Amino acid sequence: GYGRFGILYVDTAAGDSTDITSRFRLQIDATAESDAGVTFGARVRIQQDNDGSADGTTTGGVGVDADGDGDNDFRGRQETGINGVRFFARSGGLEVGVGNIFGALEFMPGMYPIDLGLTGHSYDYTAYNFRGDAYDSDTGGAAGLNGVEVMYSAGDFSMHVSASDVNDRLAAHFAYTFSGWTVALGLQDSDAAGDTEWAVSVGGSVGIADLSFAYAKNGDDNNIVGAGGNGDHWVLAARFDVGAATNIEAYVADADYFAETSYGVDFNHDLGGGTSLRGGISSTGQDVTLVDLGVRFNF
Amino acid sequence: GYGRFGILYVDTAAGDSTDITSRFRLQIDATAESDAGVTFGARVRIQQDNDGSADGTTTGGVGVDADGDGDNDFRGRQETGINGVRFFARSGGLEVGVGNIFGALEFMPGMYPIDLGLTGHSYDYTAYNFRGDAYDSDTGGAAGLNGVEVMYSAGDFSMHVSASDVNDRLAAHFAYTFSGWTVALGLQDSDAAGDTEWAVSVGGSVGIADLSFAYAKNGDDNNIVGAGGNGDHWVLAARFDVGAATNIEAYVADADYFAETSYGVDFNHDLGGGTSLRGGISSTGQDVTLVDLGVRFNF
Amino acid sequence: GYGRFGILYVDTAAGDSTDITSRFRLQIDATAESDAGVTFGARVRIQQDNDGSADGTTTGGVGVDADGDGDNDFRGRQETGINGVRFFARSGGLEVGVGNIFGALEFMPGMYPIDLGLTGHSYDYTAYNFRGDAYDSDTGGAAGLNGVEVMYSAGDFSMHVSASDVNDRLAAHFAYTFSGWTVALGLQDSDAAGDTEWAVSVGGSVGIADLSFAYAKNGDDNNIVGAGGNGDHWVLAARFDVGAATNIEAYVADADYFAETSYGVDFNHDLGGGTSLRGGISSTGQDVTLVDLGVRFNF
Repeated sequence: GYGRFGILYVDTAAGDSTDITSRFRLQIDATAESDAGVTFGARVRIQQDNDGSADGTTTGGVGVDADGDGDNDFRGRQETGINGVRFFARSGGLEVGVGNIFGALEFMPGMYPIDLGLTGHSYDYTAYNFRGDAYDSDTGGAAGLNGVEVMYSAGDFSMHVSASDVNDRLAAHFAYTFSGWTVALGLQDSDAAGDTEWAVSVGGSVGIADLSFAYAKNGDDNNIVGAGGNGDHWVLAARFDVGAATNIEAYVADADYFAETSYGVDFNHDLGGGTSLRGGISSTGQDVTLVDLGVRFNF
Repeated sequence: GYGRFGILYVDTAAGDSTDITSRFRLQIDATAESDAGVTFGARVRIQQDNDGSADGTTTGGVGVDADGDGDNDFRGRQETGINGVRFFARSGGLEVGVGNIFGALEFMPGMYPIDLGLTGHSYDYTAYNFRGDAYDSDTGGAAGLNGVEVMYSAGDFSMHVSASDVNDRLAAHFAYTFSGWTVALGLQDSDAAGDTEWAVSVGGSVGIADLSFAYAKNGDDNNIVGAGGNGDHWVLAARFDVGAATNIEAYVADADYFAETSYGVDFNHDLGGGTSLRGGISSTGQDVTLVDLGVRFNF
Repeated sequence: GYGRFGILYVDTAAGDSTDITSRFRLQIDATAESDAGVTFGARVRIQQDNDGSADGTTTGGVGVDADGDGDNDFRGRQETGINGVRFFARSGGLEVGVGNIFGALEFMPGMYPIDLGLTGHSYDYTAYNFRGDAYDSDTGGAAGLNGVEVMYSAGDFSMHVSASDVNDRLAAHFAYTFSGWTVALGLQDSDAAGDTEWAVSVGGSVGIADLSFAYAKNGDDNNIVGAGGNGDHWVLAARFDVGAATNIEAYVADADYFAETSYGVDFNHDLGGGTSLRGGISSTGQDVTLVDLGVRFNF
C-alpha cells in the first residue's frame, strides 16, 4: 500500500481554501496457486482519505466544514474498513474476476495517461469519465453492486470484457501494441443514457516524451454547460523525463459539459526508498483551480 | 484466512435465481507465550460475504435486490471491519476464553459432521441449530453480547463449559473417544424456550467412510411446520474418500419444524497449494433447492 | 499491538457491578525511508474495547446493559475499523505530523506518570484532563477533526507544537532533563473556556522510586463540584520496583471539580515473553471505586 500527505489549495467561484490532504491505503493481495498453475486470489483495501465523506461521494481531497467554523476541516468523515473484494482466477494470459471488478473501460489503455500531482486533481484527463464499472477503494464499494469480467492477453494483443448489474452494463476493450504505440477501442452497452458508448485511445513514445490521446462518447450531449457529463470528451496528455529522478506531466482536455477547457501540469521527483515528492496545478473544466504538493511513500 | 467464490443457484417456492457467491476471510491470531508456558492470545476476523446484510441476518450466500431491478444483486451490503474478539489463555489441555466465545454446543463433536459444498448450504445438518452461543464472524458479532468459557482435554476425554449474558445461557459438552469412535453429550440451561436443552452425537470411521449421527432437543416443539425451530432435530451424515484428492459428503436430517426431510450431497476436490474445487446440491427442510459450485483458496 | 482481558469491578453511588473487560489493539506502523534519510510513515490502529460505545464516549471498561436484563453486558457496541491516520516525516530530532496528531499536551512529560492497573482506571492522574488534542484510537477518531504538529529534540531539550481546528487549539510543550530530572512546561491557546491554559510537571528518580508531580490550569473553575472539569488539577505519582519482575505504582490527585481527592495503587508483574499480570484499585474524584485484574500480552 501507500500513504500520501500534503497541502491542497482549491479556488472556486465561491472562494478559496488551503487544507491538508491525505490518503492511507493498505492493500491486501491474498493468493494461492494450484498444482496446475492456476492462481486464485482476492484483493481488498483498507483506505482512508480526508475527502469528507464516508462513501467517497465528495470530490477527492476536498474537505468539509464539519465543525461549522467556515473553514474546511483537516479531516472529515472517513472510511475505516475493507472495501469490496475482487476475487480472481488467473492462468497464463487469462484472468477471470468477480465481485468488485476492475471494469473494461476503467482498465482501457489511455484512460489514465497520467496521475496529476499528489492527489490526481479532477481526473478530467480520464476520457470515459467514470461512466462505467470500476474498482471502488472506499468502504462504500462494499455497499455497491458489481460484476464479472474476463481479461485476456496474447503477445501484443489484449482484451477485457466486463458485465455488472449496475445499469446492466456490458463493456469491452481491445488493445494492440505495435512499434511502441498502443491503440485501444472500448465499447459499452448500458441502460443509462449518460454511460459511455464507445472510446478510442492511442499512445506511444517520441524521444523523451510519452504521448497519449483519448476520446470517449459519453452518451448524448445534454446541452447543459457546467452540469451533467454527457457528450464528447477528449484528452491529450504527455509525460517527459527530466533528469534521472524527475518527470513532468501535462494534459489538456475538453468535454461538451465543461464550462471551459481543462488543463494541468505536475512534477514527480523520486526521493528513493519508495518515497517521492509530488505536486501539480490544474484548471478544471468547471473553472476550479487546484494546486497540491506533498509526499507519497510506498510500504 | 481463505477466499471462496463461485455460483449459487437457489430455487424456492417464490422462484429461482442464479448468482455469484463469495466470501473473503482474513483471520488474525495474535498470541504471546509467558515464560511459564501459558499462551495468551486473541482471534479476530475481517470477513466479507455477499450475503446481502451488514449484520449477517440473511441466509448466507443469498443476495438482495438492492437496485430494484428484480434480480438479486451480485453483492449486497457487506461487512468491512473486524468482528468481536475472542481472548484466551491456554496451558496444556486447559483453555479459558472470554469475549466472542466459541460456545460449548457449537464446538460439540458431531455438530459440523460435514461442510456441504462451497457455501455450507442451509446447515440443516447442524443439529443444535444455532440455539446456543457461537463465534460470530460478521461485524455484527462486535455488536453482540458474549461470554466466558473453559475448555479442557486429557487423553481421550474432552469437555467445554460456556456461559453468556444472551438468554443467561450456561452450556457444556463432554466427549470421549474410544476405538476410533467419539461420543459426545451436550447440555444447556437457558431463559429462552427455543434454546437447545440437550444433544448427543456419535461418530467414527468404517472403511473409507466417516459416519456421524447427532440429535438435539431444541426446546419444546411449537407445532408449527415450516416456521420456528423448536423440538427434535436429528442428523445422519457421512464422508467418503474417493481417490487421493476427492471426497464426497452426504447427509439426511429432519426436525419438528421442517416442512420436509432435508438432504444433500457434495464433493471436494483438492487442487493442491491450498486450493480446492467444491460443489454441492441440497434440498432443505424448508423445501428450498440449493446448488453451488466454486473455488476455495487458503492464504 | 496488544491484547488485554480481565475482570473489572465498579462501585458507584448507583450500585456496583463486576464484568469482564477487554481490549484488542492491532497497530500498523507503515514507513519508508528516502535516500536522504527522511522517514515517512503512517500510524493506524484497529482497536476494539468492550466500553459499550461505538465512539468511545463511555468510560473505558464500563459496559452497557444492551440486552436490558439489568446487568452490564460482557460486550457492548464496539469499534471494528481503523482509526484516524497520523502521517509523519522524521529526520534526526525533527518530526512533522499531520492528521490524527499526538498533541503537545497529551505528549508532555508527566501527563502519564503511571498507567494504573489493567485498564488505566479513571486517568485522574493525567493533569491536563484531555482538554487538548490527542491521538484517538477509536473508530470515532476517524470522524473527528485534527491537525498538524512539530516535534523537536536536541540533547536534553525537547519541544512539541501542535495546532488543530478543534476549538482552534494551538498548544506547545517544552521539556528539559538534567541530572536525571525532567521539567516540562505546557501552554495552550484555545477558543474553549474549559481547555487547558498551562501546565507544569517535574519527574525523576530517587533510589528505587520514580516520582512525578504535575499541575494543570484547565480553564477557570466553574464552581460546580462533581461536574465539569475546569480549574486547577494536580497529581503526585510514584513507581517502585519491587523485585526483578514487579513494580508498584500509586498516585494521589485533586481538582477543583472533584467531589473528593482521587487516589489509587496498582502492580504490574512481568510474566515474560511480552505477557504481564496487572491489577489495581482506585477511588476516583467522582467517588467511584474501581478494581481490575487481568493479563496483557504484546504481539
